Amino acid sequence: MVKSLSNVILNSKKSKIRKLFDMLLQSGSDAISFGIGQTDFTTPDFVSDGIIQALREHKTLYAPARGIPQLREAIAQKFQRENNLPWMKPENVIVTNGGSQALTLAYAVLSNPGDEMILSSPNFLSYYYLADYYQIKCKEVSRNPDHSPNIEGLKELISPKTKFLLINTPNNPTGYVYSENDMKAVVDLVIDNDLYLVSDEVYEKFLYNGATHTSPASYPGMEERTLTLNAISKSFGATGLRLGYVGASSEIINNMEKYIQYTTAGVNHPVQYGAVRALNHSEKMDFPKIVERYNKKREYCIQRLQELQFEVVNPQGAFYLMPKLNPSWNMSADDFSEELVKEKSVACVSGTAFGSHSADALRISYATTDEKLKEGFDRIESFLHDRNLI
Amino acid sequence: MVKSLSNVILNSKKSKIRKLFDMLLQSGSDAISFGIGQTDFTTPDFVSDGIIQALREHKTLYAPARGIPQLREAIAQKFQRENNLPWMKPENVIVTNGGSQALTLAYAVLSNPGDEMILSSPNFLSYYYLADYYQIKCKEVSRNPDHSPNIEGLKELISPKTKFLLINTPNNPTGYVYSENDMKAVVDLVIDNDLYLVSDEVYEKFLYNGATHTSPASYPGMEERTLTLNAISKSFGATGLRLGYVGASSEIINNMEKYIQYTTAGVNHPVQYGAVRALNHSEKMDFPKIVERYNKKREYCIQRLQELQFEVVNPQGAFYLMPKLNPSWNMSADDFSEELVKEKSVACVSGTAFGSHSADALRISYATTDEKLKEGFDRIESFLHDRNLI
Repeated sequence: MVKSLSNVILNSKKSKIRKLFDMLLQSGSDAISFGIGQTDFTTPDFVSDGIIQALREHKTLYAPARGIPQLREAIAQKFQRENNLPWMKPENVIVTNGGSQALTLAYAVLSNPGDEMILSSPNFLSYYYLADYYQIKCKEVSRNPDHSPNIEGLKELISPKTKFLLINTPNNPTGYVYSENDMKAVVDLVIDNDLYLVSDEVYEKFLYNGATHTSPASYPGMEERTLTLNAISKSFGATGLRLGYVGASSEIINNMEKYIQYTTAGVNHPVQYGAVRALNHSEKMDFPKIVERYNKKREYCIQRLQELQFEVVNPQGAFYLMPKLNPSWNMSADDFSEELVKEKSVACVSGTAFGSHSADALRISYATTDEKLKEGFDRIESFLHDRNLI
Repeated sequence: MVKSLSNVILNSKKSKIRKLFDMLLQSGSDAISFGIGQTDFTTPDFVSDGIIQALREHKTLYAPARGIPQLREAIAQKFQRENNLPWMKPENVIVTNGGSQALTLAYAVLSNPGDEMILSSPNFLSYYYLADYYQIKCKEVSRNPDHSPNIEGLKELISPKTKFLLINTPNNPTGYVYSENDMKAVVDLVIDNDLYLVSDEVYEKFLYNGATHTSPASYPGMEERTLTLNAISKSFGATGLRLGYVGASSEIINNMEKYIQYTTAGVNHPVQYGAVRALNHSEKMDFPKIVERYNKKREYCIQRLQELQFEVVNPQGAFYLMPKLNPSWNMSADDFSEELVKEKSVACVSGTAFGSHSADALRISYATTDEKLKEGFDRIESFLHDRNLI
């Protein structure tokens, strides 16, 4: 016998999403996943070509720990141009190993053990585990029935130990997009209570029915308090390139740089040249067309879910829906998810992966082909018929 | 005013190596760096071509969190073939964001706050900072005058709180390569005291004068206790590709996978295909030729350092030397390093970057061109002449 490993890691679960994915792989070749958080398109050639050119030019030795200057400049300009943050300069930017490391750096640099953070629940699963890893207490309050933030509830959780509030709009897993009123209320909470705000904006391009995205860092008084997290992962079909970034005060960025030096020593060098092209020429992506296509998927899913008697909230962003199981079915989301993948080879993640307030809901990612969406819902229909639930 | 950031990160210093590098950049266009830990060659085309092909084939969405199966298989075979570890299987392997993240995962998964670790000093600077970040106590014992490990000294530092011992052979910054006796003694310490052993082997190919590298995991009783860290960074001129790996028990790897999922969500996908080619066709690198070339640089440096009256230990590995300043000069390594870069635009890292027992030594990386080595030493000679020290 050897000594025991880290308690926090031993106690953290393998991602339920990945676990479900493993079950799906075992369940047969006709498997359908509504489970994975990535687009059905891959990285466009104009981005890959930038990486390939850098490889051909042998740009494969260390990049600066905070990212190559050209990319930090391109990110600063992106923040200025698209997020109404005219004060953003390269010194306010650090390049990260995807949105996940952007998040890790935020937790690392903001908190001391024993600090507290606050978020609306359900929310993205890493938010909870990172709190454990950094020994901070994650306090969650249930979203309102329409998935909007419960501002009074958030307020009640604030204590002298609270260090930051975390938001993700457009949201994974609910698809909810903050209204102007939501954002104003959260910004007021942050300023009135001397907090930081971590704003995960990776789904900012996925907006429907005229919804708009606002970066909280653009509000007066929020420049020093906001950590704006983003990545090329979702917008450019590049989840596997692991290229994210943070925009924040230069003090925060300087401290993130120290941490990244000793923990991962910076980000893949050639990929950074691809990211420069992505951000400087994002018009080549034709986002309106992508969004139109995703909106049709979204509408189709909502229609099917309603027909199948799920309780559906109609969100305006991202590529997720989080319907509640019909209470009359008397089934937990964990059971539904597990039995569905076993019997019908369709993967939908149980709401329990996303915090303490969604054990009666499923997350449906509709970032898949129209054919698979139809087939997947046909199988869910058959699953419910088998049980005489519809 | 906003609340204070993380104390451990605020208290950690920006890497002295990076700081020196910044000073060097400011010091003029004829700057010479003996400071950076990477080879003077870049990634060979047969490796880059693998990445390019993966990009062309749109392999840019998420890879599995622990790495693509082909790469984990190639790494397991490499361990079997080159490191005498016949039990290594893909389940014993995880792919990381360079050797740095391999190290981070080792600290994360092994330790609870308050645990202790032990190492010989001087040693690589991240080892110390990671101990702070994971709230474990790093106990260091000075190396013997020939830079070999002080086994009795290491033994005396072991307490009931000691979780692991960390070794790096061939070593950064001393160049020291463990003898069979050194390794046997360390392995006995680990087994007798029920510890883990973290073995950082990134310089394994850089061996001179018939020195050999032994992986401690190959010793009886060490399979469950050893975390073998490596990377393609140094051997394949690929520090900027950020591709490392860990070999260990499947229990350790499974826990590392959970941690990597939530902190960085895996490694750049296309680069993993390049790494498969690197490891499966490493004979294309012609390491004997590289080593012969580096050995000549090493011998040249030792000769110059001796002529300049440094106290030189002649090591057998890596691409570093760690000469002591001549005591008669009455100069600290910090002052020497800082004044040398200011006056002569030559960067050598002060020994204080590498722990508490080398404030009288410099680290010289000789991984640069022969011309720059000559010019650099000529300038050091001039620097010493200016002060009438030689």
